[in-house]
Amino acid sequence: MTRLYDDPASFSEDMVEGFVAANPGYVRQVPGGVVRAERARRGKVAVVTGGGSGHYPAFCGVVGPGFADGAVVGNIFTSPSAADALSVARAADRGAGVVFSFGNYAGDNMNFGLAVERLEREGVRAHNVVVTDDVASAPDAERSKRRGVVGDFVVFKVASAAAEEGYSFDEVVRVAEHANDRTRSLGVAFDGCTLPGQDHPLFEVPDGRMGLGLGIHGEPGVSERELPSAAELARILVDGLLQEAPQSGGTVTAILNGLGGTKYEELFVVWRTAAKLLAEAGVEVVAPEVGELVTSLDMAGCSLTLTWLDDELERLWQAPADSPAYRKGNVAISPADPEEAADEVPEPVQQPVVVAPAPGQATAERVRQALHAVGALLEGAEDELGRLDAIAGDGDHGRGMTRGSAAAVTAADESAGQGVGPAAVLVAAGDAWAAKAGGTSGVLWGAALRSFGDLLPEDREVAAGDLVAGAAAALAAVQRLGRAEVGDKTLVDAFVPFVEELRSGVDGGAGGAQAWDRAAKAATSAAERTAELRPRTGRARPLAERSVGTPDPGATSLAMVLTEVGEVLGQ
Amino acid sequence: MTRLYDDPASFSEDMVEGFVAANPGYVRQVPGGVVRAERARRGKVAVVTGGGSGHYPAFCGVVGPGFADGAVVGNIFTSPSAADALSVARAADRGAGVVFSFGNYAGDNMNFGLAVERLEREGVRAHNVVVTDDVASAPDAERSKRRGVVGDFVVFKVASAAAEEGYSFDEVVRVAEHANDRTRSLGVAFDGCTLPGQDHPLFEVPDGRMGLGLGIHGEPGVSERELPSAAELARILVDGLLQEAPQSGGTVTAILNGLGGTKYEELFVVWRTAAKLLAEAGVEVVAPEVGELVTSLDMAGCSLTLTWLDDELERLWQAPADSPAYRKGNVAISPADPEEAADEVPEPVQQPVVVAPAPGQATAERVRQALHAVGALLEGAEDELGRLDAIAGDGDHGRGMTRGSAAAVTAADESAGQGVGPAAVLVAAGDAWAAKAGGTSGVLWGAALRSFGDLLPEDREVAAGDLVAGAAAALAAVQRLGRAEVGDKTLVDAFVPFVEELRSGVDGGAGGAQAWDRAAKAATSAAERTAELRPRTGRARPLAERSVGTPDPGATSLAMVLTEVGEVLGQ
Repeated sequence: MTRLYDDPASFSEDMVEGFVAANPGYVRQVPGGVVRAERARRGKVAVVTGGGSGHYPAFCGVVGPGFADGAVVGNIFTSPSAADALSVARAADRGAGVVFSFGNYAGDNMNFGLAVERLEREGVRAHNVVVTDDVASAPDAERSKRRGVVGDFVVFKVASAAAEEGYSFDEVVRVAEHANDRTRSLGVAFDGCTLPGQDHPLFEVPDGRMGLGLGIHGEPGVSERELPSAAELARILVDGLLQEAPQSGGTVTAILNGLGGTKYEELFVVWRTAAKLLAEAGVEVVAPEVGELVTSLDMAGCSLTLTWLDDELERLWQAPADSPAYRKGNVAISPADPEEAADEVPEPVQQPVVVAPAPGQATAERVRQALHAVGALLEGAEDELGRLDAIAGDGDHGRGMTRGSAAAVTAADESAGQGVGPAAVLVAAGDAWAAKAGGTSGVLWGAALRSFGDLLPEDREVAAGDLVAGAAAALAAVQRLGRAEVGDKTLVDAFVPFVEELRSGVDGGAGGAQAWDRAAKAATSAAERTAELRPRTGRARPLAERSVGTPDPGATSLAMVLTEVGEVLGQ
Repeated sequence: MTRLYDDPASFSEDMVEGFVAANPGYVRQVPGGVVRAERARRGKVAVVTGGGSGHYPAFCGVVGPGFADGAVVGNIFTSPSAADALSVARAADRGAGVVFSFGNYAGDNMNFGLAVERLEREGVRAHNVVVTDDVASAPDAERSKRRGVVGDFVVFKVASAAAEEGYSFDEVVRVAEHANDRTRSLGVAFDGCTLPGQDHPLFEVPDGRMGLGLGIHGEPGVSERELPSAAELARILVDGLLQEAPQSGGTVTAILNGLGGTKYEELFVVWRTAAKLLAEAGVEVVAPEVGELVTSLDMAGCSLTLTWLDDELERLWQAPADSPAYRKGNVAISPADPEEAADEVPEPVQQPVVVAPAPGQATAERVRQALHAVGALLEGAEDELGRLDAIAGDGDHGRGMTRGSAAAVTAADESAGQGVGPAAVLVAAGDAWAAKAGGTSGVLWGAALRSFGDLLPEDREVAAGDLVAGAAAALAAVQRLGRAEVGDKTLVDAFVPFVEELRSGVDGGAGGAQAWDRAAKAATSAAERTAELRPRTGRARPLAERSVGTPDPGATSLAMVLTEVGEVLGQ
């Protein structure tokens, strides 16, 4: 919903004022809208777009060299008056006439129609190019009754580029009408938008449903159906447009447009499939746009627009433009390296495989077994760790630990099979863990395994002191990367007492397995005591306070792993 | 919420695939992210940005000449792994080292930290520039603990432009850290976002409230308060940042950034006041950006970022860039007219005042009186007409008619005072009505008044036949512009029987006032009968069906006005 405004009655005026203040190099305000800050050369046909506001970047966002000469700005979703259109046209005219282009809506037809009559009475050539791209709003036989939606953007761009190239008035009108004739759009909506100062949306779509063919202000659509996957939606849009295509195959440009509340990432996921489907249908796509070009405030929904191009339309679509919200082409920046093709990226250096002596291979095998035990343990504990993490975090700790340890097991199997020592096995396992687990726990566990492994000997059996040195190195790596201290409610709270207890046990003469076992018990107690703590913030949610009373999932999983490793050591 | 996805587990990978498919001229995919499609010249320092995804255009949207060499793309709001960072860095490196720049978050620090260690082991110079711009996340004395939010964008841009200019590795690092040192951000959130496949948002802000200082993933803020007006919000953000400024006054660049669900129009309304407040504080703003540069899916909220510029930072911020989502500068398009200054827009031609003979002035006075009566009538009927219109429309018909007729009264007073005839008074009144009422009813009423007035005589008293001719001309103008037929549930349903009854009465010998009165009664009955009709669609909402049972507000107001005019004629 629209939350930020001062006076709802002057929302559009306030918006234009802020827009001009942000873009003084591009536009200046005139009664009824905006025109270019620097007037175009005398004798150029002026192209003026416009309509109700609420559709930014359409329409005032595309005023500038290579694009529109002016934009008439109405109130939200409301046609500007004929006087507004007249005012902007007079300011934009350079002596060669004014071509208005806008989407087919009753109010705009009337007001721009009146403006054309008045301009002609004043001796200024003027003509309206009315865009009719929305295939859902009328059958093909009644194309002139179709609404204008995102096809506006293509028609404006083509007409503007033609005028910039020096086309005559009649030729600008011809190519703009030709572009409209070759353009089709189909849209869907998932939810309506709420106007400034209103407390209910213009229309609503039930949760989990989708309106097919809805207009950009919530006009009636073709049907309502269950919300599809991104791939299914891509098929609905592509199939719907190809049925209405002016030809089979061919070259198109495409706009996959978000209405405001459906975001870039979602649009790219849809485009992934749409691009494949168009290629499969033998349609070549040139210079597509995926983003927000014609919005409806924060309405949730999107649409696909295809324009079948010939050489002229392709040249005009690709021509340079420089406006507040749309820039294209010819930016002069230091050139790419001409001597190197794009695909010549060097391969990463492969570490050579160094076969270890027998004691090292034996240690590596113990490490591999321990990793297998840890992997099985964490798989079984995934749900429990997830529940702990959901109290204060996003609940993915269990899944991250399971994915990380499973990847480590696979990497350790492969690595140990090559006859390497424990360091190489743990480096491979740690890298795999970090790569697959993601997030902070992945990188900490990856670094811990690497650092621990670096201190295990290859030429003799592992002694108790090696375990102390390895554990201390792993803790140091975790603290260096994570910058956590004891008391911050992280795995460090269990790790520090573990290393202290392990060291004091070994210093006191205990065997490695025995000392490890006692240290793991200390870690378990310490992990339980983290329930009393409040986490330090970072990426934590405001829910963090809730975690008081629950032990830290990272400390808990560390204590569980250390206990499990202790059992392997004791075997 | 995020509605469009295929498999939530592969959302980021699918997104990158679609992003690359849409921008093959700019980027290509490598494991862990994207790099430029055409590699930069050998010897250029590589600048690599990155972090969790969900922030488009940050970070993959800014890869291209003049901007980043590569972007590391993690899962939604999750740090990419060190292996991802390493992979992108290796592909981006041109032999002069890699500068990573990213926002200060634990996971990113760890993973990019590990990547730097590995790159240096491989003999590649590497360094992390960690952005710390969010003033809400730590006090000034602990600036290095602050989170990185939209300041990322400025620091990336400056570092990238420096690398493009040929700065050495150390110099790129220096100027990037300098940019970070001069950058401050403060943000607010109104609502959280929901991740793909999740059914509840990451966090929520109660309706009508605002979280001040929330991080871009919903981390804890400074306080929660009532939702302010746009102007109040501008003051909160500007004051909050000026308190943290590295200097008083000076020159800044600014980013007023929308998080995804707070749209362009709202941001421009906020910028309108923010620009004034900065100017009042003696801060000069250069090349600001108002829009979506660092989003958080469709989170509702926005932030203001200020970077205090010196000559070097200003040059680098303004330097040309050409990337999928951000282009700047140097577009070569036909130049503006050098001979004409921007402010030389011709004034519209003023119609000369033609004083009418006495009978015309008398008719003009009657017209003026009738308009006063209509204005008073419509002011009293505003609420009733609004209620009728709210059934199927947006409820603004009453307000539009009141605003339009009030403007017409003022214009008629002014015009009649100059001694002109009825045509000139009605042209002035009609133009004012159309300009102030907005929407379709405004333009129809404006045209109707104009057309009616054109047929009133100036050199004699008005005869009954003049009224018939005027009414028929007004109806013709309404039908030509509105393209409505009888039965479409518009004012035409009342207007057609009015003209027919008026004509048949006058043809039958009735006086003008008597025939008008009978015709107005026919119009009133016809307006009531529109309750049985279903409106034709157009800009109507899906609610249109609901209007069956309610008379059309346009037909109703026309009948009311005609009845009132009849009373003036009868006096």
